Formats: sequence, C-alpha cells, structure tokens
Amino acid sequence: MYSFKSDYSEGAHPAILGALAATNLEQAEGYGEDDYSRQAAALIKRQVGNPRAAVHLFAGGTQTNLTALAAFLRPHEAVIAPATGHILVHETGAIEATGHKILSVEVSDGKINAAHIQAVFDAHTDEHMVKPKLVYISDPTEIGSIYTLAELRQMSLLCRAKNLYLYIDGARLGSALCSDENDLRLADLGELADAFYIGGTKNGALLGEALVICNDALKADFRFHMKQKGALLAKGKLLGIQFRELFQNGLYFELAAHANAMAGLLKKAISDAGFRFLTHSPTNQIFPILPNRLIERLQEKYSFYVWAKVDADHSAVRLVTSWATEEAAVAAFIKDLHTCIGAK
Amino acid sequence: MYSFKSDYSEGAHPAILGALAATNLEQAEGYGEDDYSRQAAALIKRQVGNPRAAVHLFAGGTQTNLTALAAFLRPHEAVIAPATGHILVHETGAIEATGHKILSVEVSDGKINAAHIQAVFDAHTDEHMVKPKLVYISDPTEIGSIYTLAELRQMSLLCRAKNLYLYIDGARLGSALCSDENDLRLADLGELADAFYIGGTKNGALLGEALVICNDALKADFRFHMKQKGALLAKGKLLGIQFRELFQNGLYFELAAHANAMAGLLKKAISDAGFRFLTHSPTNQIFPILPNRLIERLQEKYSFYVWAKVDADHSAVRLVTSWATEEAAVAAFIKDLHTCIGAK
Amino acid sequence: MYSFKSDYSEGAHPAILGALAATNLEQAEGYGEDDYSRQAAALIKRQVGNPRAAVHLFAGGTQTNLTALAAFLRPHEAVIAPATGHILVHETGAIEATGHKILSVEVSDGKINAAHIQAVFDAHTDEHMVKPKLVYISDPTEIGSIYTLAELRQMSLLCRAKNLYLYIDGARLGSALCSDENDLRLADLGELADAFYIGGTKNGALLGEALVICNDALKADFRFHMKQKGALLAKGKLLGIQFRELFQNGLYFELAAHANAMAGLLKKAISDAGFRFLTHSPTNQIFPILPNRLIERLQEKYSFYVWAKVDADHSAVRLVTSWATEEAAVAAFIKDLHTCIGAK
Amino acid sequence: MYSFKSDYSEGAHPAILGALAATNLEQAEGYGEDDYSRQAAALIKRQVGNPRAAVHLFAGGTQTNLTALAAFLRPHEAVIAPATGHILVHETGAIEATGHKILSVEVSDGKINAAHIQAVFDAHTDEHMVKPKLVYISDPTEIGSIYTLAELRQMSLLCRAKNLYLYIDGARLGSALCSDENDLRLADLGELADAFYIGGTKNGALLGEALVICNDALKADFRFHMKQKGALLAKGKLLGIQFRELFQNGLYFELAAHANAMAGLLKKAISDAGFRFLTHSPTNQIFPILPNRLIERLQEKYSFYVWAKVDADHSAVRLVTSWATEEAAVAAFIKDLHTCIGAK
Repeated sequence: MYSFKSDYSEGAHPAILGALAATNLEQAEGYGEDDYSRQAAALIKRQVGNPRAAVHLFAGGTQTNLTALAAFLRPHEAVIAPATGHILVHETGAIEATGHKILSVEVSDGKINAAHIQAVFDAHTDEHMVKPKLVYISDPTEIGSIYTLAELRQMSLLCRAKNLYLYIDGARLGSALCSDENDLRLADLGELADAFYIGGTKNGALLGEALVICNDALKADFRFHMKQKGALLAKGKLLGIQFRELFQNGLYFELAAHANAMAGLLKKAISDAGFRFLTHSPTNQIFPILPNRLIERLQEKYSFYVWAKVDADHSAVRLVTSWATEEAAVAAFIKDLHTCIGAK
Repeated sequence: MYSFKSDYSEGAHPAILGALAATNLEQAEGYGEDDYSRQAAALIKRQVGNPRAAVHLFAGGTQTNLTALAAFLRPHEAVIAPATGHILVHETGAIEATGHKILSVEVSDGKINAAHIQAVFDAHTDEHMVKPKLVYISDPTEIGSIYTLAELRQMSLLCRAKNLYLYIDGARLGSALCSDENDLRLADLGELADAFYIGGTKNGALLGEALVICNDALKADFRFHMKQKGALLAKGKLLGIQFRELFQNGLYFELAAHANAMAGLLKKAISDAGFRFLTHSPTNQIFPILPNRLIERLQEKYSFYVWAKVDADHSAVRLVTSWATEEAAVAAFIKDLHTCIGAK
Repeated sequence: MYSFKSDYSEGAHPAILGALAATNLEQAEGYGEDDYSRQAAALIKRQVGNPRAAVHLFAGGTQTNLTALAAFLRPHEAVIAPATGHILVHETGAIEATGHKILSVEVSDGKINAAHIQAVFDAHTDEHMVKPKLVYISDPTEIGSIYTLAELRQMSLLCRAKNLYLYIDGARLGSALCSDENDLRLADLGELADAFYIGGTKNGALLGEALVICNDALKADFRFHMKQKGALLAKGKLLGIQFRELFQNGLYFELAAHANAMAGLLKKAISDAGFRFLTHSPTNQIFPILPNRLIERLQEKYSFYVWAKVDADHSAVRLVTSWATEEAAVAAFIKDLHTCIGAK
Repeated sequence: MYSFKSDYSEGAHPAILGALAATNLEQAEGYGEDDYSRQAAALIKRQVGNPRAAVHLFAGGTQTNLTALAAFLRPHEAVIAPATGHILVHETGAIEATGHKILSVEVSDGKINAAHIQAVFDAHTDEHMVKPKLVYISDPTEIGSIYTLAELRQMSLLCRAKNLYLYIDGARLGSALCSDENDLRLADLGELADAFYIGGTKNGALLGEALVICNDALKADFRFHMKQKGALLAKGKLLGIQFRELFQNGLYFELAAHANAMAGLLKKAISDAGFRFLTHSPTNQIFPILPNRLIERLQEKYSFYVWAKVDADHSAVRLVTSWATEEAAVAAFIKDLHTCIGAK
C-alpha cells in the first residue's frame, strides 16, 4: 500500500538527518539561542531580502499560527480568512482559544481578494462588533491554488491603507514558490506581508516552520509569546540545523520542485485519461474527479483521501506528493489507473 | 569550554538517532496515530502498570503542562504549586494564559506536602475566590530534591479526599526514579497521580515528553485539546520512535543513572574539598556553594549558572549532568577544582 | 423627536422604581444572597414549572451569554448559531474571547432548525475540528421572528440525542411569549432548553436578565463563574427587587403585550398604506420597506434605524416599540406617515 | 439586627433615586452615549483636572478591573499587586481568566511601595518569565490604610522610569480622599496614575464605578473592550445620572465624609474602652481586636465579619460604615459595647 495521503508521511530528507547526526554531540545553547538557529535565520533573511526581518523557528504550523496571531492582535481584534482556511476549519478553534474571532469569507477557489477584505472591513462599523485587524491567507491554499504577485500586491495595498496586517500561512510555501504558474518570490512576501511562515514539516524537515516577521511593530517581545504558548524547544538547535540545511544550498526549492513534478505527472496522466479536476491546482495537491468504482479499485493498492462527493457515481479524491514521493510509485499508480480503467 | 549548564545541550542518544534513521523513509499515519506511537504508549503503560492509562506524546514540557492543565480544569478552578514550581516561575504565565490562577505555596526544599495543600484548600471558602482543584508538583523538584513514596501517598490520599487532582511534572523524572535515595516506581505514580509526564528531552531524546493520564475522568477528547494548543505534530512518529527506543530495553533508566552517577562524582569531590551545598540533591542537578573567586576561575573553562548569592564572598552555582556528560569531563572539572583551590 | 430606535430608551416601569424606593434603606446581604433575589428566583421557577431550576440574575445580556457559555463549555467545544445571532455579530467577539468558536449557520428568517444542527454536527468529524456542543438561538430572533413549540421540540430532541445543549437568548422573550402567533409557554422552555434567559432590560426593568439553568449538569459552581466574569453585583438586591416586581403579578407579560400591541398598530397602518416588510415579525420589532424619500421625511420627527438597503429607492427600516411606547406617539407617527405619503 | 458588614447593604442615596425618577421616562441613546453619561464624564474630568482623560462608567468593580487590565496588557504582561489585593484574592481569578498572571508582593499594611516594585521588576529577567507591566494598588487598601502623596509620587516615578502602568482600584476612593490623614486629591491621581476608578457602589450609588484613563496610550478602542466583557449597559444613562448627581455638587465627598465620621466615632469609643486594632485605618473600615466573649455578645444585635483570629481568646472584627450608617445606630453600638464590657 503506497500512500498519497499527505506530504508528511515520511521522516526527513537524508541530508537533514545527516546534519543532525553530524552535530549531535556538540553542546549548544538552548531555546533557539544557538549558532545554527542564528545561521538559519540569517540565510532566510537573505532570501527574503530583508535584513531587519525577525525569524523564529517553530515545531508545527498550528503552533506558529496561534502564537503569531495571539501576539499580533489585541483582544477585540479579529482575523479575516477564507472559509476554507486552515485556521478556520482544521485547527480545533486554536485561534478562538486565544480569544479572537475569525471572520469567514466564502470563496470558490480557496483565495480571498481585496474586494472581499474591503467588504468585511466595511461591515464592521462600531464597538458592538469585533474590529477586523489581520488578513489570513495561505499560499498555496488548502485546495492547491496559488496567489499571483498582482493579487498579493493588491491585498497588501488595501491592508496598509486600512491598517490591517497581512499574514501568510506557508505550510506548503515551497510548492507554491516552485509551481510552474508562480510569479512570486520570497522577497515579494518579505515586502508585501507583515508576517508569513515557511513550512519545513511538509517539505523535507523532520519538523519545523520558520516564521518571518517583516513589520517592525510586530517584533517586540516575540519570544515571550513563544514561551507562553509552549513553542520554545529546549533543544532549539534541532530546528536551526534543519533550516540551515534547507536554505544553505537551495535544498528547500529542490525538494518542492520534485513534489510538484510528481504531482504534475499524476495530473497529466489523469487528465489524459479523460478525467476532470475539482480545482485548478498547480502545486503538490491535486483533486481529480473519478468514478467511485475506480476509486475503490485504486484504494486496494494506494491510500489517499476521498475529498468530496461530486455526484452519485463520482467523487473527488486528493492526491498529495512530496519530496519523498518516488517516481516509480507514481509510474505504478498511473499504470494501475490505466489497468483499472481498462478493466472497468 | 565544557558546559554543565543544562541537560539539553546535546542532541539525542545515538541509539535514538539510529532508530530515526532506520525508519526514516517508512510511510506512517500522521498526528500520532502511527504504529510507533502506539508501541511507545503500550510500553509505557506496561511500566506504569496501568493498561487503561492514556499516553500522549508532546514536543516539550511547557506545552505538556499547559495542554493538560487547560484540559483538566474548568474556568474557575486553580492550581496549587510550590513557589519554585516551573509553571509558576519559568513558563511565562502559560497556565494563566489559559485562564487559570496558580496558588503559590512557600517552601524551603522545593516540595509541598499534604499540610500545605490542606491549608490552601481551607483558605478558599466561597465563590469570591478561585476553587483549588489541581496540585502540581515536580519530581525531582526545580532544586533537585525528590519525593518519597510516603510523601506522595499522603498527598494523593488528601487529594482524593478533597476531590483535587494530583499532577506530576516529570521533566527530569528519570533522574528522580534512578536516584540512590528514591523509593518510587513508575507504577506508584500510575497509582497515586491523576496524571504525570515522563520527560524525554532531558534524558536522551531529541525532543519529547510522554503524558500519562491515569484518571479516567480526564481522558475524554484529549486529542482535541492537543490539536487546539498546537501540540499534535504532523510527523508524530518522530516522538513514538524515540519513546519506543527509550522504553523497550531500559535505555531511559540507563541514561538517567549515568546522569546521576556523574552528578554524584561531582558532589563527592566538591564535598570532600570542604564545600557545602545550597540544597540536598540526590539527582542530576547539584548546587554547591563556592567562593566567588573560585567560581570565576572555573568559569574560564566551564559554563554553568550562578544560581544565588549566599554572602558577600560566596555563591551557589548549579551544575547539571546528563546522559551525555562525559566522565572525562567530570574528572577534568574535579582536577581543575583542586588546582584552583590550591592556587587560591 | 420621538424615538422608535430601541426598547431600552427609557428607564424602568414606574412600579419598579417604586419598589426600589420602598426598599431602598433596608439592609440586605450582598451579591445576590438577599431575600428579594430569592423571592424573584422562586417566582420564576414557579412559572417555569421547574422547582429544581437554578435562577441567576445578571446586569445585561452579553454578560449573561458570555458567563453562561463559558461556564457550560470545555475549551474545545463550540457553539452553533444562526448567522444573524447576537453573539455572532453584535457582542464584539465576547464568546470567542472566552475561547470558544461559534459555527455560523446561514438562515433567511433568523431561525435555525434541526436539519441545520444535524448538518453542522455531521461536518465535525475529528479532533482537528472543534466539537459542536451548544446550540444558541434567540426567541424572538434578531429580526423579530419567533419559534413554534413544534420547532423547539424538534431541536430539543435532536440536541438530546446528540448530547448538545440548547440555549435560548431571551433578551426580548416577553415579546415572543406575548405574540399573537406564539404557542410557547415559559414551562415549555423549562422543559426543552438546557438554559435560557428572561430579558428584563428590554421589558421594563432598569437593568436585569434572569438566567434559568434547567439541566442539572450545568448548575455546579455557577456563582464562581459569575464572580469571575464580573457579574455578581454587590447590591444584588437591585436585580431581585425588579424581577420580583415583574413576576409577582404578571407585570412582565402586561408590559410585553403592550409593546406588541404598539408594534401591531404600526404594522397594520404601514401595511394598509401599501408597504411590504422585510421579514415577518409578530413581535415588537418590525421592518417595513419604505421609499427613501419617505424615510427622510419621517426622520425629521422620529428616530429609528435604517436597517438595510432594498433597492435604489427603497430601504427597510426598523421600528421598535416597548412597554414605554405611548399610544399617542404611535398615532402621531401613523398620521405623519399618511401626511408624508400624501405630500410625496 | 443592625449590620456593619459592608458599605453596600443599602440601596442608593435618596438624591440619586430622585434623579433616576425625575429622568425616568426621558428617551436616551443607549450604551453610555447619552447626555447624562457625557455630563458625568465632564464633571469627573474637571475634578481630575485632566480634560483629555477618558471616563467610562461600569456596573461593578471586578468588571472594571478585568476590563481595564485585559485592555491594557499584552498576553505576556503581568500585574504586580500586594498579596492582599482584591484582584489577587477576591475576584475568583478574574484577571487570570483574561490570561494574565498577578505577581504577589507580601506586605504587612496592605500597601506596596517603590522598593517592592523594583524588586519584582528586577527578578523578571528574560522571556521564560512573564514581563511585569502594571502595578495594581487600591486606595484605601483592603485593610483600610491609605497612600500618601509622597508614596504615590515615588511609585509613579518608578513606574514611568520602568515603563510600567500604575493602576488604582478606588472601590472606596471617597473614603480615602475624605480621610483626616489624606493628602491626596483627585487631581493627583489624574497626574500620577495611568488609570484609576472612582467607586460609586460603596459610596451612595445603586451601582456604578467610573474608570478614568489618564494615559493616552491606553484609550484607543476602549469601548470595544467594554462590550466584549459585557460591560456596556444598554440603559447606560442609569450610570450617567448617578455619577452626575454624585459629582455636580460635592455629594460624593459628603457621603464619604459621613462614612468616615461614623467609623471615627466607633474607633474612638472602642479605643477609649481599652481595645487595640489590627491595623491603622483612617477610613470607613476598622478592625478592632476584641475578646471572643464580647464579640459573641455583640453579634446578638449587630452583624459584622470576624476577620482574623488573634489569639485563643481574641479576634479582630471588621466594622464598616457608609453614607447610610445612622448615627443613632453607632451610638447604640457604643452603648451596647459598654454594657457588654460591664457585664463581662
């Protein structure tokens, strides 16, 4: 049984495990004040093109989101997010648990835009309602779509005009940045976002997310917030070593490009076989619509999520690839797909 | 410069790194629902002697404490803890950030007892005050002392009589359990505590703490609380593999015994040299009182915390050993101590 | 300028002021433990038909909602509410500030039903999402509609089957209970809801809401929650005296009936003049759709909210009546309406 | 049975009830945006000598404290308070429920000073601990003592030097300001504190506390915080009318002076009879130490709290007077005291 369920099924890229082994018995300062964490931060700031950015390393995405948003917002301030946003649906109310409402925007493609933001902003007129203060997006979105530079720029402009923060959840940011359709660079995020995070867990690290705070006003005392939320790892070098490895020679982008290439192979084969997709995804998650009978046959050899019922006989499934996806496994899946179709 | 600052300066025990490498490319279920996490839980439950216990794996101690206490308590319920307790002083208000007051008990040796608990309980008489509901202790304490079975039993009896929970922070539990003066076994904790955690980070793991919930009433929906606090790691097997390695062949206890032995060598040498100690510590942290001149000389070659000023010319320092402390380093320190004394 | 903006523009019904004056210099126990508060609770329990109910008196509706919901829910549990619900829109995130997500249900008439609840319940499948636990409705709704006994019974049945609590915000409960179209009695709420509150502020009291907790499991330690939220008034008798006055001789229902009658006069006159309404409201808030020109003319002599734009030339306005609305003012408004129409 | 238990046993001063009755049927804007609330704020700002101060009216003291402190502090920031502070002991963890730790300072007379503040400040050195940010005191303290201008000035200077806020709980502020030993004026508080509140409930109002925010940095969006905590009363004029009445002709100070005078009579008589006091209190609460036999005799005709056991045969009791305390009742108490002593 080969799994296309997620991009966190395997451990770490071997180069990362190697770096952990090579540095294992060195003594280091705790809680992220070691040299490796500093080096990782320096590498990331260089790529982001902002030497004044603050970089903080976390163990996971929900932890990053909840720590950052709780630190950035005052009690009456709220978040604007697409209805499919990870913080809105799949983090067990982690943001609300820190006291903040999330205002949901209905969208069809996972993406919100400046008009959505304006509408929510305009609808909140007095102290009987929360005050919208931070726009949360993810790139890529939960359904694999990505933002263009123009879209991001427009949102950023509006946010600054309205005194809103723009925050980008980059759990799979590598896949967005390495997509064929992408025109964003890390430096654009550094310029247009107030804060964003670069996901490591889903792109080759054992665990780890790098939060980049671009807005000076959001930097003060940030490590207090991390400690309070249980997010300062005693052996913080564990994260520093991994991000140094990912960013010192471009490994981060190589791994994401591989994941995208594997998804591309699957997408082309499925499309060539005549199937449509639930969403347009140029990243490492694709959502083909398949006959239920075919899905059942494929599930005998492959695991993946059935995402949504489309009609009585068809469902959309989610196939996810990663840095660890073997090209041979993709080829086998395609072959089995054809066999199953032929046998239908 | 050799460090006796902490027991989290190095990475993981080599056997743990080896296990991570050996299983690295296996595909596993995410979020702690993998086989390794299940095996680790089974091993721990066996040692705790309670097959009905719930075991949950966390990335760090503060995260464990805040998730557990927030899950166990209703809004108006408070924690009783010694004034030196980690949650009271060194977790940046993490428990209060989840809404709960901690009632502090002044103690001289880091330990609270049944009489302290009774006094706090009796002082809270009506709805204008919080309702004490959970007793937090750590074993060993922040200053290296340990609880006896009799002390723990007495507290547990009182807690059950008063409908209070007893929770034990075991960040360094291995060191307590392997102390020459200890008469507690894991099975005693399983019987007497409502919940406790077994620290991995400070005893050989890259990261990881295993929370054991013994009281049935505290088990429901616990994974919801973990996710909400950002404590469910996507690659949860990372924790499962480590705790399986620590508990399948007694490695956990071997490592703690080594740490204690190294602390014992330091303690004996320092004592033989005529120095006293701030506290009686039979575990891997010791607090000798040394002349300030001597401390300065030692700091040229060793790093450690100066813990407290004792008088104009003397201070207590903290020396911490771990599974990774080299006997040669301990011998060198002792030799340097004698040299410094001679040169005084 | 006469105001139809709200049902809290005036002070208290004269009988209530009289009762306050008559008892003013009596010494009483503080914090709601006085005889008047006990008598008020007894009167309410009798009407609710549940001698075991717990009755607690609050100063305002938002305070009642946030105290009750925070007391009833564990951290990962969420509220289901109609998208127009007061707690969702007009309480500045008060519920989220206590840590709980509100799951919004789109509705056209302000009312949710058993099918809505079932759908939300079914969509929340695992620990990555919040756990729906409490259904919040208001009767009448924010737009003046009311629930029937059959609707409430169906929701209550589903809630009990799914282990959900049913909570009713009764800020204007008197108006619902006294509506011509109502078939609910207080005793039905006592049987079908887990908790609900009877609004006093909007029905003749200076201030005050009476929370009735019907479900035994929700009663424990409730006064601790009140004190923690700042909801125990030192001079609690102030609330007890008012609710005693409202419920000892049926004053509560008389006042609500008057408010409804005044709204009925307005509704009939506006309808007879050929205008439609945004919603069907049989209570003390009505939402006629009027030409913008007419609205402007009326605003010269009356204050009221323009609720929603309907088309380029028409808007819906909100007219609210209360126990204090003078029949002469209603007659004057109707006369002015006709005059304005004639002059159009 | 006459009660000396509290200063909130009776209702409101008749002039206040009269003002409520006189304005009862006037229509007013809701939620504190009425003319009376504006007039009350203007009167208070004039007395405070700070036209830029923001004044907000609340229903009770715990509500005022929790709303203000939650609004003023970021999540990792903590409060410094005397161990006897009301927020620390008698508000059911209300401040912690908003996420903030309170750092307790042991004091003998209820008062903290600049040296205490400095010590707490110095002990909090890094992000593993909370960041002290606000100093909470009450004047008078819980045990009746008051601050001098010099003490307050010294604390204020230190707070500004360390970037801490100084907040004064004035639940009984009238009694402090009208004490024979007082040298503080309202204008001093306006200059030296960042925020403070003027208690109405315990000095003649039905209910009401007036928060005065002096520090510009703390004013933004304050009404959002009030609404979120359930502290915006729909009929806000109820508070405005009362504070206008208290401050337009000096009634506030007259009432407090009466309370103090009544306490003074009791104090003198008890002292003349040869008894000592637990604390030095120049305000409306006194704590005489009496033989237990005498206490029991007095309790047959008077209710009051037994505050603390002093030795086997003696206890300290608390006697509280108020604007409503009748001189005849005081005289009767004194006479009964003498009778009881004679009969001993």
